[in-house]
Amino acid sequence: MAAIRKVLPILDWLGAYKRADLRADASAGLTVAVMLVPQAMAYAMLAGLPPAIGLYASSLPLIAYALLGSSRHLAVGPVAMISLIVFSACSRVAEPGSAQYIATALLLAFLVGAMQLLAGILRLGSLVNFISGAVISGFTSAAAIVICLSQLKHLLGIKLTTTHSVFHLLLQAGRNLGQTHLASLTIGALTIGGLILFRKKFPHFPAAFIFVIAGTLIVYLLGPQRLGVQTVGEVPRGLPSFSVPKAGLDSIRHLFPAAMAIFLVGYVESISVARYVAAREKYKIDPNQELRGLGLANLAGAFFSGYPVTGGFSRTAVNYRAGARTALASIITAVVIIVTVLFLTPLFYYLPNAVLAAIIMVAVASLIDIKEAVHFFIVKKTDGWVLAITFASTLTLGIEQGILIGVASSLVVFIWHSSHPHTAELGYLEKDKVFRNVRRFPEVRTFPDVLILRADASLYFANAKFLEDRLRDAVAEKANLKWVIVDMSGVNDIDAVAVDTLEEIIKTYGEHGITFAFAAVKGPVRDVVARAGWEGKYGRHIGHASISEALREIGIWTENDVRGPEQQPGERPP
Amino acid sequence: MAAIRKVLPILDWLGAYKRADLRADASAGLTVAVMLVPQAMAYAMLAGLPPAIGLYASSLPLIAYALLGSSRHLAVGPVAMISLIVFSACSRVAEPGSAQYIATALLLAFLVGAMQLLAGILRLGSLVNFISGAVISGFTSAAAIVICLSQLKHLLGIKLTTTHSVFHLLLQAGRNLGQTHLASLTIGALTIGGLILFRKKFPHFPAAFIFVIAGTLIVYLLGPQRLGVQTVGEVPRGLPSFSVPKAGLDSIRHLFPAAMAIFLVGYVESISVARYVAAREKYKIDPNQELRGLGLANLAGAFFSGYPVTGGFSRTAVNYRAGARTALASIITAVVIIVTVLFLTPLFYYLPNAVLAAIIMVAVASLIDIKEAVHFFIVKKTDGWVLAITFASTLTLGIEQGILIGVASSLVVFIWHSSHPHTAELGYLEKDKVFRNVRRFPEVRTFPDVLILRADASLYFANAKFLEDRLRDAVAEKANLKWVIVDMSGVNDIDAVAVDTLEEIIKTYGEHGITFAFAAVKGPVRDVVARAGWEGKYGRHIGHASISEALREIGIWTENDVRGPEQQPGERPP
Repeated sequence: MAAIRKVLPILDWLGAYKRADLRADASAGLTVAVMLVPQAMAYAMLAGLPPAIGLYASSLPLIAYALLGSSRHLAVGPVAMISLIVFSACSRVAEPGSAQYIATALLLAFLVGAMQLLAGILRLGSLVNFISGAVISGFTSAAAIVICLSQLKHLLGIKLTTTHSVFHLLLQAGRNLGQTHLASLTIGALTIGGLILFRKKFPHFPAAFIFVIAGTLIVYLLGPQRLGVQTVGEVPRGLPSFSVPKAGLDSIRHLFPAAMAIFLVGYVESISVARYVAAREKYKIDPNQELRGLGLANLAGAFFSGYPVTGGFSRTAVNYRAGARTALASIITAVVIIVTVLFLTPLFYYLPNAVLAAIIMVAVASLIDIKEAVHFFIVKKTDGWVLAITFASTLTLGIEQGILIGVASSLVVFIWHSSHPHTAELGYLEKDKVFRNVRRFPEVRTFPDVLILRADASLYFANAKFLEDRLRDAVAEKANLKWVIVDMSGVNDIDAVAVDTLEEIIKTYGEHGITFAFAAVKGPVRDVVARAGWEGKYGRHIGHASISEALREIGIWTENDVRGPEQQPGERPP
Repeated sequence: MAAIRKVLPILDWLGAYKRADLRADASAGLTVAVMLVPQAMAYAMLAGLPPAIGLYASSLPLIAYALLGSSRHLAVGPVAMISLIVFSACSRVAEPGSAQYIATALLLAFLVGAMQLLAGILRLGSLVNFISGAVISGFTSAAAIVICLSQLKHLLGIKLTTTHSVFHLLLQAGRNLGQTHLASLTIGALTIGGLILFRKKFPHFPAAFIFVIAGTLIVYLLGPQRLGVQTVGEVPRGLPSFSVPKAGLDSIRHLFPAAMAIFLVGYVESISVARYVAAREKYKIDPNQELRGLGLANLAGAFFSGYPVTGGFSRTAVNYRAGARTALASIITAVVIIVTVLFLTPLFYYLPNAVLAAIIMVAVASLIDIKEAVHFFIVKKTDGWVLAITFASTLTLGIEQGILIGVASSLVVFIWHSSHPHTAELGYLEKDKVFRNVRRFPEVRTFPDVLILRADASLYFANAKFLEDRLRDAVAEKANLKWVIVDMSGVNDIDAVAVDTLEEIIKTYGEHGITFAFAAVKGPVRDVVARAGWEGKYGRHIGHASISEALREIGIWTENDVRGPEQQPGERPP
């Protein structure tokens, strides 16, 4: 039973469901639906898809997630970032608006869903940890800019050709600024202003819904022909139709990078907000269960005329604040959307595209985060650079490339750091009775024929040679050197290649009459060198408990000195 | 002047050159030449090139390296591993034996040389550190097997079609075993047996040369027609001709992975042996100068009918043992080879291919190293697996793919390890007066409302969440928890994302009445958290010198207890 509950978290809360829960869930579910209807249509437009597809993606996928997902508050559905990736990828394969374009979007949803489900079954949920916060921040800011620019054509009512270059887009917009359609711009600008005002004054109010109604009414009353603004037009009534995604090997190869990017971006956005709410409500998010839930949601979209979805930040927050208690709130949202597509779509006929564009722009503009970039640059410069690289490559090379280059560069930075570890020559600081870095504490006492070196890194193949170079330099500075004591307290792990390198070092220096001693070797490292037979080869000098013990053992410190160093446990030089 | 010497190391020794040096260098240079002549022809055959190309590659490139390289003993020239990569790459682009095949090899030499020279100018020499010893070992063993198998056709005197699959090659050889040419096999087998015998009895003797003469004489005396063995045939007399490599964009794209692999393999082999000799002779190898030297050597080959070369292991050892003192020995080797191609090539007409095949097989068979693989598996299992993956992919997917997959897998292993760091809950070990892992030392004293956690890793984006999970589990086990003391002595570095994650953790647990204290924070980490404003935010609890100080400050330990823990500086729990 526990095993079934783990696979179907819905059983966890369904058994203990109370009437009071239902009222809370219904209210929250309705609130989210009111917010979701305009967003779903707007994001579908952003993805280059008909508004109906956005609504379809807001129905069955929500129910699918509710069955498998481990979050009770996550509001799944179309989101801006993923819609942009869908547009970027599908418009390379098919013409936006064509039937083939929709088929491509369905195939993409299928790929994303299959990848997520598979990753969830293989328990690869912790992969998300490899996406650095700096990468997410840089990517999000750049994507937000790209999204805002992509909505210019609707806001200005001008024609812009599809392009993947931000600069080309700006150039085109600048050239065509003269053709700006004033009615569209006015409606759009008023919506933007209104939305910003509402957010400041009544942050919990689903303002977009109001502007959807107001915009539709204005166009309807003033006459669409006279105004000449582009509107949503006919949205087909009825349930989403079932179809099996058609997958050619060629289109799969073309869509694969985008599927990977949606997989990463969607999962990161979703699990971040799910964890945030779960921490507040004290329940646990299972990353692998999340992957399976999102996977099933995307597969539902793929087979029932949806497009890739994930757990959205803002709607989840609204759902939680509106009092949702269980995943039933999401199911209620889905039912409201289904009712909408069954009966209410004619109401959207006169809804101006400029209003939807304004909703998108206001939603994503708040994601541009300069403060975060400054923060990263201040705290750790390399993190700032990773953010900048991700930002720049997302803006110039494209959305999918941006996130992948960001992940790669953050890993390169980490590997580069780890291959150039910090080391310190230590001396004895009489005052504090500890050993400290001679560079930071020039007053320390050093010993003419002993070098005390602290390695501040786990040793592995890529930094073992660095240690060798560092040692050579340090040894070159000390004539008459007889002993090298290596403080291993910072060496958390070691690999076989580094063990071999250390053995070579010991042998080479041994031929010149210099002997090595190792102090404060940690358990995991001790296990490895034991398997390499160090005890037999080097005897007691590999396992000194401390630097002072090593100094005593090799006869540098006499009993008289020993009374000197007194240190509290856990104390360590900088 | 010092700057010029740094760029042209030849000036370093040329000024102080003595007559005694000349005798030593001449003797060593001649010894290497005697060894190089048959090897150069054999390796050219392995690369699918005419023997003359091997000799050309053994002339000017040696002089080019002598001008720029920082090693005085390195013997540059064709080597087995690189010849195999040349064959593997060029036979995909052109038919072995054709003029286009030779042009492709020249272009490959040009690409390798340009990459090395550029890397040397950009000071990327330390990149070699990213090739793990486990990768080199697995690759070398697999390449040695592939090389041995590729020589079967010469040894057995049978026809085998060019193939990149080891299994296909073995299958073909098995099917054609009936057509074995007995005279070729006899000559080859005798040479193999003789070379092995010589190596055991007289390891310093250039035995290959003897067998080249013996084999040639036997064929000449018994009559090539009667024996029917394949021989080297006509080797054109005269100097290598100058030509500019023809580079199409398409062929560059095809050759790029191979050029990358040769760059890596050649550089690793070369710098390993150069460092080995330099350590013994107490001079320093400059990795970037080495790259420039090898780069110029390969460019010389590209323009003067050579093919990719590098510093070879066995010939460098012979050069050093034969008494070489400066790079003049290599220049003398080159001069002897030039004299050979000018006047002596007709002597090789009757040299049987089976003898060359035998020389190659004996040379590379010793590179198959099972002991090393066992050693890696014993000392650190993951290193063993990296070796096995590299070995298997080199054998099955191809030579260039093998080394690249090996490098990638070793980095993945490192990243994976670092993202799942070791952590330990600590308790106070009365006996030794230190804090130790409660799992390894169940007798330690713990404190009911304090959790002491040691993180054994530098904290960065990929493992910060892991720490969070670990904390949650640890906290769940302790009711009434009030304090978490984190022992940071193993945290050598931290990035901005990990700082943010720690702040979130502190905040979340703070809301549940649990306070954090950090002990033994290292200098580099202290710098980062200082820039993040921790002192202002958390005050004194971020900078306790030791766990016991933290315990005292939060009032767990009284003055009475304090006398208890006495520890030598540098001492650290396992």
